[in-house]
Amino acid sequence: MNKERLRSLVEGSAFTAVIQFLILASAVVFVLESDRDVWGLAEYATHFLILDWLFFVLFSAEYVLRVYIEPRKRDFIFSFYGIIDLLAILPSLFLLPGFRVLRVLRFLRIFRIFKATRFILAVDRLASALRGIQQELLALAILSLMLVYLAACGIHYFERDVQPEAFGTIIDSMWWAVVTLTTVGYGDVYPETGGGKVFTALVTLIGVGLIAIPSGLLASALTEARVEREIAEEIVEEIKEEITEETKKES
Amino acid sequence: MNKERLRSLVEGSAFTAVIQFLILASAVVFVLESDRDVWGLAEYATHFLILDWLFFVLFSAEYVLRVYIEPRKRDFIFSFYGIIDLLAILPSLFLLPGFRVLRVLRFLRIFRIFKATRFILAVDRLASALRGIQQELLALAILSLMLVYLAACGIHYFERDVQPEAFGTIIDSMWWAVVTLTTVGYGDVYPETGGGKVFTALVTLIGVGLIAIPSGLLASALTEARVEREIAEEIVEEIKEEITEETKKES
Amino acid sequence: MNKERLRSLVEGSAFTAVIQFLILASAVVFVLESDRDVWGLAEYATHFLILDWLFFVLFSAEYVLRVYIEPRKRDFIFSFYGIIDLLAILPSLFLLPGFRVLRVLRFLRIFRIFKATRFILAVDRLASALRGIQQELLALAILSLMLVYLAACGIHYFERDVQPEAFGTIIDSMWWAVVTLTTVGYGDVYPETGGGKVFTALVTLIGVGLIAIPSGLLASALTEARVEREIAEEIVEEIKEEITEETKKES
Amino acid sequence: MNKERLRSLVEGSAFTAVIQFLILASAVVFVLESDRDVWGLAEYATHFLILDWLFFVLFSAEYVLRVYIEPRKRDFIFSFYGIIDLLAILPSLFLLPGFRVLRVLRFLRIFRIFKATRFILAVDRLASALRGIQQELLALAILSLMLVYLAACGIHYFERDVQPEAFGTIIDSMWWAVVTLTTVGYGDVYPETGGGKVFTALVTLIGVGLIAIPSGLLASALTEARVEREIAEEIVEEIKEEITEETKKES
Repeated sequence: MNKERLRSLVEGSAFTAVIQFLILASAVVFVLESDRDVWGLAEYATHFLILDWLFFVLFSAEYVLRVYIEPRKRDFIFSFYGIIDLLAILPSLFLLPGFRVLRVLRFLRIFRIFKATRFILAVDRLASALRGIQQELLALAILSLMLVYLAACGIHYFERDVQPEAFGTIIDSMWWAVVTLTTVGYGDVYPETGGGKVFTALVTLIGVGLIAIPSGLLASALTEARVEREIAEEIVEEIKEEITEETKKES
Repeated sequence: MNKERLRSLVEGSAFTAVIQFLILASAVVFVLESDRDVWGLAEYATHFLILDWLFFVLFSAEYVLRVYIEPRKRDFIFSFYGIIDLLAILPSLFLLPGFRVLRVLRFLRIFRIFKATRFILAVDRLASALRGIQQELLALAILSLMLVYLAACGIHYFERDVQPEAFGTIIDSMWWAVVTLTTVGYGDVYPETGGGKVFTALVTLIGVGLIAIPSGLLASALTEARVEREIAEEIVEEIKEEITEETKKES
Repeated sequence: MNKERLRSLVEGSAFTAVIQFLILASAVVFVLESDRDVWGLAEYATHFLILDWLFFVLFSAEYVLRVYIEPRKRDFIFSFYGIIDLLAILPSLFLLPGFRVLRVLRFLRIFRIFKATRFILAVDRLASALRGIQQELLALAILSLMLVYLAACGIHYFERDVQPEAFGTIIDSMWWAVVTLTTVGYGDVYPETGGGKVFTALVTLIGVGLIAIPSGLLASALTEARVEREIAEEIVEEIKEEITEETKKES
Repeated sequence: MNKERLRSLVEGSAFTAVIQFLILASAVVFVLESDRDVWGLAEYATHFLILDWLFFVLFSAEYVLRVYIEPRKRDFIFSFYGIIDLLAILPSLFLLPGFRVLRVLRFLRIFRIFKATRFILAVDRLASALRGIQQELLALAILSLMLVYLAACGIHYFERDVQPEAFGTIIDSMWWAVVTLTTVGYGDVYPETGGGKVFTALVTLIGVGLIAIPSGLLASALTEARVEREIAEEIVEEIKEEITEETKKES
């Protein structure tokens, strides 16, 4: 009985709000701690350490609590959110000198904010839309990687002699391919030969569109899911009304 | 009775056209005044001040008029357009020496152009499309902010030692994250280490698509709204025709 | 009678193909002539002049021919294609010393390629899709211009003291606003102050999506038009089959 | 009979998996060989030559095998995949001194990965979506090329005197037009005159949307194809159920 009450408490909105605040606070503290030398907070190193331990204790307590109240413990531990919860706690354990570098992973805690009840439905819809188009996404991902490979091979052939430091190897040319095909275009590397420029023009005019398809696909899938949901809600509403009317007639 | 006539005048197309012209003129004057030293208009400072007062008086008069003719004054004052109207007047009040800096906000007047009757329907449709997808937009906005946070944490880890001036703090790295994920890519900051480049390639290939989803979503919602409107118009048209035919038969 | 035969000749595929070739050839010649000093073709200036006159005579002849065969001459002259045809001829007239600079407009001839019969249907569909969403496009265009104005005013406020040469006037800041909001991001101008960077982050995360909506909208409208066309074709096909079957039964 | 067994072997999943592995391995080997001087693998030149010959022999054997088992040999050889297969083998033949440069084309082998059974359905759907919108794509491609041409002519007119090295010829200006209209924006060339900047602002605000339409169009077509497939699958499922029920009733 105690377990049931605890459960309704943990899944209640007050508890969730506190945890959300802690997640956001730990994200802010992570940034402040990381930048402490620049912002003149170097002297507060001990305070940050204490805050860190506090977050560790609180998130661990929450994790243990969630495992305790869960009837099917194994399912929870290996679920998506269970693994995120664990990943969010683990890095703090590495306060021992040898493992300090792994503490940097504490920023992964931010993923826990996914569990926010307020927009959990929208995230679920996003996830279901992604599942619906996973075959297309996989094909487009492989096509994109092939495009990056081919673009890198091509530009390497045209530019390797003129700019060996940027296009001397295919691996280095891949950096150019990614920066160009995503249209980020920093301008740190770009073709200078005539052939390289013609090749780039061809690759970008075709490739830029390919890289942009997945996001259009996901937008369409989300719209479709929303329309279906709205139709379903309308049908449910109509059925409810019919039942109410029939109940009225009978009485 | 006088109030009613005033109302039909204020809501008429002639009055609206004059106000629209004044809004555009005040936007142009704001630019001219701001750039007056560069364009050799420095000597006309007094003229600009007079123009400014003129706009202030005209927009204030319009605001007072609108409040006067409105039956539910409180609703209007706290409505979206009421607040915009007030925001557009207030900054001009700060001509007193101490508050001069706030006068800069006069450029917010441009928001009043939203009230232009010509495309008010399209803006309303845009707003209703936005409302329809607000849950998805909120979720995507939070995901985008998380992505910016995670990208900044990651690149800070890879680049802080090589480029401390650009990636020395997570806050500074966020500038890079925004410029990269929106694909603006100025080229003022970019990764130089191998690890940073691989991390950037992963983040951009995934993240650039995420940031682009909302605009695709809004485009789909707008299309849907337009199709629904067209179907509704067709139905109305058909009903009208049926009524006309029946009236004919009867007579 | 002669006029009718001439008409079927002018509207036939052979004549159209010749004109298309001439349009492309004149576009290539325009580039070659413009770049003749760089490519060592300076000595052929007279040849280019002759070619130019040849194109002028041919396009003028075609224009006169089209006006001659057209029953409603006035409608043709003031139609979209009629004006393009005229615009394509006029610049060549300015070979007189005083008007030479207007000859540069000869490159507008390329617009005549719109009349290519091969993809005239697709262009018509594009135009009809554009008409269907013109209200939304107009609203989005005005919103985009407002966004450019507001972004320019904002960044001018933050950066004018630090970078007066790039952000010293609002007009200059608009160049930054356009380059940033279209995500081109050359990197010739970018914010350097903390406030300017935060402002840029806010403006780009919101504004970049706004600027991208029209193209998504047009893509949706085109898809919709295509689906409607396919359904219409199917219905026509079904009606044809029904008629054929009924004819069979009767006989 | 032997041919039939061979055929089921070649088209089986084990054989396909081996070939896929070989394709990926040859792509990796191509990169390693190309970058061998940088990675200190120069001494293994002979090993790479042997590996190269091995791949050549294996892919040739597979090609011969596929032709052998195919009943309609001619159809296979001139099919899309048949030509890709041949293109993937041919470059390795040029190990003779005179043709060495053509060996570089070996990276085209990666196209063979298209044949991977795992995502062949998704690629087929992509191809059929492309076919469905080919008229629109062609029109948009021609419009895009026209836009590049017009943008290059325009910017050349504005910038040729100030920046002759970047905008001195129309051909050179086309490089700027492609980099700008695809929003890559490296920042190696950009307008500096007032007129050039105004022209660029106009061209990008209109043109950037045009270049982005095809990818939105393809995303919509893919979504539509997916929805149709899902509806078809549901209908097939319903028919199956009906048949099962009727069979039950009968028995």
